[in-house]
Amino acid sequence: MTLNSQSFIDNGRERLLEELCEFLRIPSISTLPEHKGDVLKAAEFVASSLRDVGMETVEIIAGEGHPLVYAESLEAPGKPTVLCYGHYDVQPPDPLDQWVTPPFEPTVRNGSLFARGAADDKGQMYTHIKAVEALRASGGRLPVNVKFLIEGEEEVGGEAITAYVPAHRDKLAADVALVSDTAMYAPNTPTICTALRGMVYMEWEAAGPARDLHSGLYGGTAPNAVFGLVELLAKCKDAAGVIQIPGLYESVRAPAAAEKESWRRLPFDEAEYLASEVGSTALTGEPGQSVFERTWARPTFEVHGIGGGFTGPGGKTVIPAKATAKVSIRLVPDQDPQEILRAVREFVAANTPAGIQVEVRELHSAPASMVSPDHPAIRTAAQALEEVFGQPTVFIRSGGSIPIAGDITKHLGIPTVLMGFGLPDDGLHSPNEKFSIDNYYKAIQTVSHYFELLATTNMEQA
Amino acid sequence: MTLNSQSFIDNGRERLLEELCEFLRIPSISTLPEHKGDVLKAAEFVASSLRDVGMETVEIIAGEGHPLVYAESLEAPGKPTVLCYGHYDVQPPDPLDQWVTPPFEPTVRNGSLFARGAADDKGQMYTHIKAVEALRASGGRLPVNVKFLIEGEEEVGGEAITAYVPAHRDKLAADVALVSDTAMYAPNTPTICTALRGMVYMEWEAAGPARDLHSGLYGGTAPNAVFGLVELLAKCKDAAGVIQIPGLYESVRAPAAAEKESWRRLPFDEAEYLASEVGSTALTGEPGQSVFERTWARPTFEVHGIGGGFTGPGGKTVIPAKATAKVSIRLVPDQDPQEILRAVREFVAANTPAGIQVEVRELHSAPASMVSPDHPAIRTAAQALEEVFGQPTVFIRSGGSIPIAGDITKHLGIPTVLMGFGLPDDGLHSPNEKFSIDNYYKAIQTVSHYFELLATTNMEQA
Repeated sequence: MTLNSQSFIDNGRERLLEELCEFLRIPSISTLPEHKGDVLKAAEFVASSLRDVGMETVEIIAGEGHPLVYAESLEAPGKPTVLCYGHYDVQPPDPLDQWVTPPFEPTVRNGSLFARGAADDKGQMYTHIKAVEALRASGGRLPVNVKFLIEGEEEVGGEAITAYVPAHRDKLAADVALVSDTAMYAPNTPTICTALRGMVYMEWEAAGPARDLHSGLYGGTAPNAVFGLVELLAKCKDAAGVIQIPGLYESVRAPAAAEKESWRRLPFDEAEYLASEVGSTALTGEPGQSVFERTWARPTFEVHGIGGGFTGPGGKTVIPAKATAKVSIRLVPDQDPQEILRAVREFVAANTPAGIQVEVRELHSAPASMVSPDHPAIRTAAQALEEVFGQPTVFIRSGGSIPIAGDITKHLGIPTVLMGFGLPDDGLHSPNEKFSIDNYYKAIQTVSHYFELLATTNMEQA
Repeated sequence: MTLNSQSFIDNGRERLLEELCEFLRIPSISTLPEHKGDVLKAAEFVASSLRDVGMETVEIIAGEGHPLVYAESLEAPGKPTVLCYGHYDVQPPDPLDQWVTPPFEPTVRNGSLFARGAADDKGQMYTHIKAVEALRASGGRLPVNVKFLIEGEEEVGGEAITAYVPAHRDKLAADVALVSDTAMYAPNTPTICTALRGMVYMEWEAAGPARDLHSGLYGGTAPNAVFGLVELLAKCKDAAGVIQIPGLYESVRAPAAAEKESWRRLPFDEAEYLASEVGSTALTGEPGQSVFERTWARPTFEVHGIGGGFTGPGGKTVIPAKATAKVSIRLVPDQDPQEILRAVREFVAANTPAGIQVEVRELHSAPASMVSPDHPAIRTAAQALEEVFGQPTVFIRSGGSIPIAGDITKHLGIPTVLMGFGLPDDGLHSPNEKFSIDNYYKAIQTVSHYFELLATTNMEQA
């Protein structure tokens, strides 16, 4: 078939790429206070892009953290309303020395655009804005009603949007939410993600002696904050990788047999995955669970970072007074973040070694989310993907967390279509993050086509 | 009794203190490359001080690391020769924000001088130089032959002196070595230390996946370098604090019954030690061993620092590719550092979790050392202390490491008198390190009196 957006893409390739590069040059790292100004600049870029493509109302909603950007164009009475979600903030780029080209100087290599945020999520989010532009170019008026809610705190817990959504149910009312912040299962394999893991992200701080002590004089009697934290963390999983915190698996449901069967049909080579994706000598994780189950349908316990004592060059013989770790538990559907946090706190209290005090601070939490592949909005999305890519759409889950997806279900009562255009080796959160340029254009086409198809979709669920 | 040095001290209090302050203002942090110039400046200060007090030969011996300072005055033919050892380098002062006054701006408070290096070891080492000055002031000629060998790498493994001593046995030949780099058991309790622990200091580096990975996408399958290192470290000790590395206790001898008995007579309040020295809620360490045994006569395993993954403010959801820990094992007499290192490497190889690689790098090592309290040089030292302090001398051990003490025994075949003037709460290696000003003056008097007494001591061991 010939898509209405084809000439828009054909005539705009270079311009569309350069506009995205301009967006990617803004180092909008939400977790680093020194980049607060850049995060704001990115919000302004988003707002201005939305105005440029003719969205009727565009607002920057400032708050205590980084602003939300809202826009709407309600010019299709009686037609469905789509709420587009995305985020304009990015992860820190460290370790910097591992980037081939600088993270905030977007560079094209081998058909991909390399930059922090290229795939997660600036590049993908931007395709929604450009889809509106494509529709305006081919028809003038949008075929559906469109709302945008774009945040700048996705990588730091999404505090502003978490508060905003329940407080603005009427304003945000829609029939379906569209999120492009996931990946395709494989190149040229259009993919819809039906579930995301949630997360409890914490900082654990251990205190031992009142001050750093000389390990010669006090080694043998003084509790060591680093070792105390190490002992406690090691107790959280057994050697096989099974989480030892009581209650942690209590509400975990196994995926349906049909879903597991469909995962088994996905092309997957575990040796290849180990060697080229993970890059190690062995995989870890719960025995008896497949890679898909372990990464999509099981909770995990990870230490993202640890620090304490002397770590400079050479040696310093201290017994450290303090140590800190960043710890997360990924959640699967039906797990309640606050219940899990309570279980963690109880475990920590019961298992902290003598002489050590450990404080567990919650940094952010979100439940998992899930949608049925039979919902009309999902079926139409699958059709749009198939018609642009010329391949059948596969349904997968993702192990990542998009906290807003859970909030959309809870407060707006609508399904979220997770239509991702990233690729598995895009290096999200890693050095040399990239986004396929071909997918960038196809994503713009898919989203605009989806909006066209949605205009004639009966949204009543079968 | 009236000491010959009394008027020297009485007339010089302020000058002697100011001269030490000048020395302490030099931030001679040997482990930090950016302070290399300061370490050299401290060496020059020592050499110039030695010349000022009339030492006949003074050399700065440059090498690859920080220089040694050597000096001698052999003007007492037929009399014993004393080799004075000390070090002019200091530990890093971090955490800086915990210092009441800046570490390199010596400040007097409550009868103590606060500065990094005040007790460890600049202040104590300097008393040997000032003792020579005191003797010159009262008599002109030194009553014994005196050699100084002062290093600038004690806090980083003492590479230069370790090579220098065995290569210069004739030059360094002496009857006794004098080291003031330990503490008194309690205020106004003259103390000689009869044994020091040795050490194997290592850096352990763990590698997991080839690069930092997104914990949403790979959490559940990818080995985590931080968690792998945590698991490995936790296996090194059991919950009671007993080291689990096979062979670690093999050559450990229990202290003699008489020595243990003398330790039991030392005034010691465990609750007070826990509350005011350690500053925690419980002590750790091997069950069935007293605090003195655990800190003086048992090996220990400590993690001095750990780092890996994301540790900045906020959250970053990576599975870290690398993690590093600084690890030491303190050694007691009869343990061989290289045998212990072999045992560690075997344990690490056998216990590293799947998917993780751990490299053990030796940063520095030294055996423990020990001396008999019945040696004439020790008995005379005890007498000098008693006559200056007016209190009986107690014999203790120290859990710290002074690597040169083992080398002196091995290569020069002479006993080392560990005559310390520090106090247990001096905060070595910690913020707010201090040195008692009264002990500073008494140390100068004790050392000069010791030299006088040594002139008439029969050094043949009974």
